[in-house]
Amino acid sequence: MRFFHNDYNEMCHPAVLRELTTLADTQNIGYGVDDHCKEAADIIRKLCKNDNLAVHFLVGGTQTNLTVIAASLRPHQAVIAADSGHISIHETGAIEATGHKVLELPSTDGKLRPEQIARVARSQSDTMDAEHTVQPRMVYISHPTELGTTYTKAELTAIFQACKEYDLRLFVDGARMGYGLAAADTDLTLADFAELTDVFYIGGTKVGAMFGEAVVISNPDIARDFRYLIKQRGGMLAKGWLLGAQFKALLQDDLYLKISAHANLMADKLRCSFTKCGYPQLVESRTNQVFPVLPDSLLQAISQSFTFTEMHRVDESHRAVRFCTSWATKEEDVSALCALIEKFR
Amino acid sequence: MRFFHNDYNEMCHPAVLRELTTLADTQNIGYGVDDHCKEAADIIRKLCKNDNLAVHFLVGGTQTNLTVIAASLRPHQAVIAADSGHISIHETGAIEATGHKVLELPSTDGKLRPEQIARVARSQSDTMDAEHTVQPRMVYISHPTELGTTYTKAELTAIFQACKEYDLRLFVDGARMGYGLAAADTDLTLADFAELTDVFYIGGTKVGAMFGEAVVISNPDIARDFRYLIKQRGGMLAKGWLLGAQFKALLQDDLYLKISAHANLMADKLRCSFTKCGYPQLVESRTNQVFPVLPDSLLQAISQSFTFTEMHRVDESHRAVRFCTSWATKEEDVSALCALIEKFR
Amino acid sequence: MRFFHNDYNEMCHPAVLRELTTLADTQNIGYGVDDHCKEAADIIRKLCKNDNLAVHFLVGGTQTNLTVIAASLRPHQAVIAADSGHISIHETGAIEATGHKVLELPSTDGKLRPEQIARVARSQSDTMDAEHTVQPRMVYISHPTELGTTYTKAELTAIFQACKEYDLRLFVDGARMGYGLAAADTDLTLADFAELTDVFYIGGTKVGAMFGEAVVISNPDIARDFRYLIKQRGGMLAKGWLLGAQFKALLQDDLYLKISAHANLMADKLRCSFTKCGYPQLVESRTNQVFPVLPDSLLQAISQSFTFTEMHRVDESHRAVRFCTSWATKEEDVSALCALIEKFR
Amino acid sequence: MRFFHNDYNEMCHPAVLRELTTLADTQNIGYGVDDHCKEAADIIRKLCKNDNLAVHFLVGGTQTNLTVIAASLRPHQAVIAADSGHISIHETGAIEATGHKVLELPSTDGKLRPEQIARVARSQSDTMDAEHTVQPRMVYISHPTELGTTYTKAELTAIFQACKEYDLRLFVDGARMGYGLAAADTDLTLADFAELTDVFYIGGTKVGAMFGEAVVISNPDIARDFRYLIKQRGGMLAKGWLLGAQFKALLQDDLYLKISAHANLMADKLRCSFTKCGYPQLVESRTNQVFPVLPDSLLQAISQSFTFTEMHRVDESHRAVRFCTSWATKEEDVSALCALIEKFR
Repeated sequence: MRFFHNDYNEMCHPAVLRELTTLADTQNIGYGVDDHCKEAADIIRKLCKNDNLAVHFLVGGTQTNLTVIAASLRPHQAVIAADSGHISIHETGAIEATGHKVLELPSTDGKLRPEQIARVARSQSDTMDAEHTVQPRMVYISHPTELGTTYTKAELTAIFQACKEYDLRLFVDGARMGYGLAAADTDLTLADFAELTDVFYIGGTKVGAMFGEAVVISNPDIARDFRYLIKQRGGMLAKGWLLGAQFKALLQDDLYLKISAHANLMADKLRCSFTKCGYPQLVESRTNQVFPVLPDSLLQAISQSFTFTEMHRVDESHRAVRFCTSWATKEEDVSALCALIEKFR
Repeated sequence: MRFFHNDYNEMCHPAVLRELTTLADTQNIGYGVDDHCKEAADIIRKLCKNDNLAVHFLVGGTQTNLTVIAASLRPHQAVIAADSGHISIHETGAIEATGHKVLELPSTDGKLRPEQIARVARSQSDTMDAEHTVQPRMVYISHPTELGTTYTKAELTAIFQACKEYDLRLFVDGARMGYGLAAADTDLTLADFAELTDVFYIGGTKVGAMFGEAVVISNPDIARDFRYLIKQRGGMLAKGWLLGAQFKALLQDDLYLKISAHANLMADKLRCSFTKCGYPQLVESRTNQVFPVLPDSLLQAISQSFTFTEMHRVDESHRAVRFCTSWATKEEDVSALCALIEKFR
Repeated sequence: MRFFHNDYNEMCHPAVLRELTTLADTQNIGYGVDDHCKEAADIIRKLCKNDNLAVHFLVGGTQTNLTVIAASLRPHQAVIAADSGHISIHETGAIEATGHKVLELPSTDGKLRPEQIARVARSQSDTMDAEHTVQPRMVYISHPTELGTTYTKAELTAIFQACKEYDLRLFVDGARMGYGLAAADTDLTLADFAELTDVFYIGGTKVGAMFGEAVVISNPDIARDFRYLIKQRGGMLAKGWLLGAQFKALLQDDLYLKISAHANLMADKLRCSFTKCGYPQLVESRTNQVFPVLPDSLLQAISQSFTFTEMHRVDESHRAVRFCTSWATKEEDVSALCALIEKFR
Repeated sequence: MRFFHNDYNEMCHPAVLRELTTLADTQNIGYGVDDHCKEAADIIRKLCKNDNLAVHFLVGGTQTNLTVIAASLRPHQAVIAADSGHISIHETGAIEATGHKVLELPSTDGKLRPEQIARVARSQSDTMDAEHTVQPRMVYISHPTELGTTYTKAELTAIFQACKEYDLRLFVDGARMGYGLAAADTDLTLADFAELTDVFYIGGTKVGAMFGEAVVISNPDIARDFRYLIKQRGGMLAKGWLLGAQFKALLQDDLYLKISAHANLMADKLRCSFTKCGYPQLVESRTNQVFPVLPDSLLQAISQSFTFTEMHRVDESHRAVRFCTSWATKEEDVSALCALIEKFR
């Protein structure tokens, strides 16, 4: 059985394990104020072309999302997200548990539009009894989105402008950032994210690390006392240097981009098979997630040898599903899966 | 200028003021453990035909909603509500501030259906990674709803059964309970609510009291330690006997029902005028709120002498609006308003 | 039986009831944006000699404390209070329920000293891993304190300076403010509180109102969006004008001070009896609470006709107790109590 | 420079790294429902001699503490802890951020006594207005404590009985459990903890793992839906099998106990030097932390080559400090430190 049901089924890239292994006999100071974290932060600031960014390392995505949002909002303020956003549906109410409402906007491709954001902000502040409703103060988007789609630089610029116009902070969840940066359908770079957001993160867990997310903060109000927030929410790893070391390994020699490009290529290959056989896809995308709509019979055949995730039933005999590739996906496994699909036709 | 924009623009029914005035020279013990509260609770238990109910008095609706819900849920649990529900949009995220997500279901008439509830509950528990989503554990409905509609006993029974089937608790917001009990289109009594919910409340603020809501709890798990919750959330009135005394006055000689029936009659009269003139209404209802869709020109004329609440714009020249009557509405004012409407045609 | 066990056993001063009664046939707009609230706020600004103060009216003390503190702190921040402070022990963890730790400092007379505050602030910021501890950001004191003691202007000035030096906000709980303003042992005025705090409140519930506390905010960061916070925490009274009207009545013609002075006088009379008979007191004070240490036999005799509150057992045959007077205390009742005490000797 | 300032300055025991390395080329399912976690949980249930225990793996201590406590309390309930407890002072208010007060009891040796617990519980429930105070519902102790001391089986039994008598749940923080199990001054075993607590955890981060804590729950009310809580609080590691694998490695062939015994031996050696030279210790203990009171001049000399943690200043020329040993401490480093101490005399 080969796993395609998500992108965190393998431990880590060999370069990461190698780096960790070299640390086996060293002593390091705790809580992320060690040299490995400092060096990794410097590399990130360099890649982002901004020396003033605050950079912090956390263990996982939900933890990062709730810590960033709790650090950014006063009690009566809310965060806007797509209804398919990770914080909307896949985090057991983690944001609400910090006291804040998630204002969920409809989206069929996982993306938000500046007009949607402006409409919500305007409609709230125009209400006669505005104080009876939550005050939107942050916008959360994912890049790539939970549906594998990406924003272009023009789109992100427009969203950031809408945010500034309505006094909203922009937060980009980059749990799959590598796959976004390497995608053929977007021109966004890390420097763009540093310039066009208040805070974003570079995902490690799904892109080659054992675990770890690097939070990059340009807004000083969010950065202030951020380590207190990390500690309070349980996100401060005692052996913080393990995070710094992993990011150093990942960001060296473009490794992060190279392994992401591999995953995207594998996904493209898979997409190509589905298209060749005439199976539609839920959304167009060029990152590491593929969302075909397939007949139950084919899914039955696939499930003998490969895993995937069910999205939802489309009709009596078809389901939308998800296949994920990753930095670890083997070309031979993709080829075998493609062969099965094409043979089934 | 006469106010029809909501149902809490007058202080209180004369009988309530009279009762309070008689207390002017008395001493009472604080925090709601006095004799007035005991007597009022006994009256309510009698009206509900159940001696085992826990009865508590709080000051206002939002406070009551957040206290009841916080008392009923563990941290990972959520409350289901209509998207027009008071807790969904008019309480500045009060429920989320206690840590819980509100699962908002679409509703055009303010009501929830048992099928909707069942679908949400089933879909969550059937999810492969159920623990990545919030667990629905309570259903919140309003009677009458925020759109003036009511449930029948058959409908409430079906909802309560769905709740029991999916291990959900049922909470009825009765901020306008009197208008619901007196409505021509429903057969529900207080005894029914005591039997067919886990917890509900009898609204005073909008139905003749100066302020105050009487919470009635049949589920012992919610009742346990409820006074701690009231105190913690800031809802325990130091001079609690003021609440007990008001409810005693309201519930004597069917006053609560009589003044509610008056409000409904006034609303019917207004509805009748709109219908006579061919103006449609957002929803059919028989309680104290009327939701006509009116031309801007008529609204302009009305606004010279009467207030109302804007709901939303329907088209370029029409808006949906709300007129509220109450226990305090004077027939002469309604007649003047009807005359204006009918003359305008 | 006459009640001396607390200062909220009577409904309200006749002038307040009279004012409310005049409103019986009027219509008012809701939620505290009516003219009565505006006028009351203007009176308060005038008494405080500062036109820029934000003034809001809430129903009760716990509600006010939790709303002000939640409005003032980021999640990792804490409030410093005396271990006898109301928020430390008498509010069922209301502050913690908003997510914040109360740093309780020892106090035998209910007061905090600037040195204590400075020590805590310095010790936290000097810690090597400061971010592993909560960050003090607000100081909570009561005036008069829960033990009836007061601050002088010199003392409050020193505390406020300590707060500014350590970037702490100062919040004064004035649930019994009137009794403090009228006390013989302090020179503090409302204008002083407006100048020497970030936020404080003028208590109504315990000083002549039916219910209500007037929050006065000079710090614009706390004032911003404060109405959202009031609504979210359940403190926004639908019929807000009831609060404005009560404070108008109380603050007219120095009524608030006059009725407070009466209460203090009654307490002095009681104190005098205890002293005459050689009974020690827990603390020296000149406000409406008296804390004698009395033999069980005397307490037994008193309890036949008068109520009081038990503080704690002092030795095998003595207990420390509390007697409260108020605006409503009748001189004849105090005389009867004094007579009983003096006769018992 | 050699580090003795805490017990998490080295990555992990070689056996743990070896186990992780063998997983490099495998695929595993996420979120802790994999076979490695199942096997590790089975080993723990076996060691605890109880097949019905729920076992979950989390990443770090603060995260574990806040998740367990949030899972165990209703909003008005509090947790009792020593004032030196980790949750009291070293977690940035993590518990309060979940809404609960920590009732901090004085302790000079880091331990709680059953009489203290009983006194707090009784005093709260005996209060006339009990609902104005938080309700104690859980007791938190650490084994070993933050001061290195341990409980005996008789002591833990007495505490657990006190808890049962007052309806309190007992939670043992076992971040340094290994050092406690291997200590010469206590007879407690894992099976005892499973029997004499409602929930406890076996620390990995400080005892040989890269990271990870194994939570063991015997109380079914706490165990119910525990995975929801883990996810909501950000503690569910995507690659959960990394946790299971580490605990498998640690618990094999008594490795966990053996490496802990080594740390204790190193600490004993250090203690012996201090004693030999006449330096007093803050507390008597036999685990991996040593707390001598030393002259500044000696500390100055030590700090040239060894790190330690400052506790507090004792007098003008002496400070109390902490030295930690761990599974990774090298005997040659301890010998060098002892030589320096003894030579300094």
